Amino acid sequence: MTTKRQVPRVRPTPKAEETRRRILAAALDLFQERGFAETTMRDIARNAGVATGAAYYYFPSKEAIVMAFYWETHVETDAAVERRLKGIRDLRGRVRALIELKLEPFRPYREFLGSLFRSAGDPASPLSPFGEETREIREQSIGHFRRALEGSDVQVPPDLAEHLPDLLWLYQMGIILFWIHDRSARQTRTERLLEKSSDLIVKVIKLSRFRVLKPLRGAVVDLLESLL
Amino acid sequence: MTTKRQVPRVRPTPKAEETRRRILAAALDLFQERGFAETTMRDIARNAGVATGAAYYYFPSKEAIVMAFYWETHVETDAAVERRLKGIRDLRGRVRALIELKLEPFRPYREFLGSLFRSAGDPASPLSPFGEETREIREQSIGHFRRALEGSDVQVPPDLAEHLPDLLWLYQMGIILFWIHDRSARQTRTERLLEKSSDLIVKVIKLSRFRVLKPLRGAVVDLLESLL
Repeated sequence: MTTKRQVPRVRPTPKAEETRRRILAAALDLFQERGFAETTMRDIARNAGVATGAAYYYFPSKEAIVMAFYWETHVETDAAVERRLKGIRDLRGRVRALIELKLEPFRPYREFLGSLFRSAGDPASPLSPFGEETREIREQSIGHFRRALEGSDVQVPPDLAEHLPDLLWLYQMGIILFWIHDRSARQTRTERLLEKSSDLIVKVIKLSRFRVLKPLRGAVVDLLESLL
Repeated sequence: MTTKRQVPRVRPTPKAEETRRRILAAALDLFQERGFAETTMRDIARNAGVATGAAYYYFPSKEAIVMAFYWETHVETDAAVERRLKGIRDLRGRVRALIELKLEPFRPYREFLGSLFRSAGDPASPLSPFGEETREIREQSIGHFRRALEGSDVQVPPDLAEHLPDLLWLYQMGIILFWIHDRSARQTRTERLLEKSSDLIVKVIKLSRFRVLKPLRGAVVDLLESLL
């Protein structure tokens, strides 16, 4: 799979790259400990051991830091997709493997993501996973689900196939949202939800070929096309 | 339908009731204009023309004001349910009528609900529609969907019937959330979503009787029972 990546316009020096990483790590630690809204650029700079001006040189705002976090986790996931899906043929297994892979880089930052979601939950927020600013990441993520479908053992009717990657991406967002708010020990409720709901979804996809479900497929496609 | 209502322990005097209503109205106006987090009890008291201490006498916190708002809109809706459903037999019409009824009292407060959702989106918030503090309202709201189902022309298989009111309530919450964030003129996208998705849902319910869908029904029930 070839996926377009966001490439810095100027190749940073190793020293600059190291400083940038230190600021990013310091910011994530603070976001996780105190919450996104409660952390200032000044706190971040202090925690990273750089001057506030230097922090602003690397990241014009806290939002830019979050966007960098989105990109880093996305690129990391993107690089692992093929490896993770390899050898799994059944669709349920592929979807689950993909969502588990996507959750991995978020695990250390569950509290932070909860605090972030309070503002990014609004699709008008620049940090919303549904907004214009995150379109490129979203489209590439949807592409991962297209890959999961293509390599699987399930034949999807063409009218549904076109929209299914979007639907699976939405489903994944629902799982992540549930996980952010899941207070069960080690988030075992999310695990159970992922297991049972992926099972259900793959059953629906398999049944969608049957004649009796044709009107339903039509209604799903109609709904999606009128909204997207 | 008889629905338990929250009754004030001491019958307020007309004067006290009038003051309470004035504080509530002033608070909702400010929440709508400035946002929930940005409004203080002092602002509310000033806007209502009462002393800050008096405002606290009626409502111990901003959260208590929001809870009163939840109850008022709920009681208002509750009183209108039977009248609104009367004469509609088809399930799609009943579900739509019910959700439209539920949206009505929220319409003047869309901005406020958006700002509220930023904190109430977390199920641990006392103001979350999914939390312990709002259980009574939630259960009665779910009862409205039970009524919509019972009086309709659709036969629901018993295993699904048990959970369907909960599912329809969840669906309604999804519509409300979409509506809060819907920036289309007069929220016409929400209208379209409600129209098409209620259509889809009723189709699914009607098809659920077919043999081919039996394993699916089992998977839905299994998912719900493991989570609820």
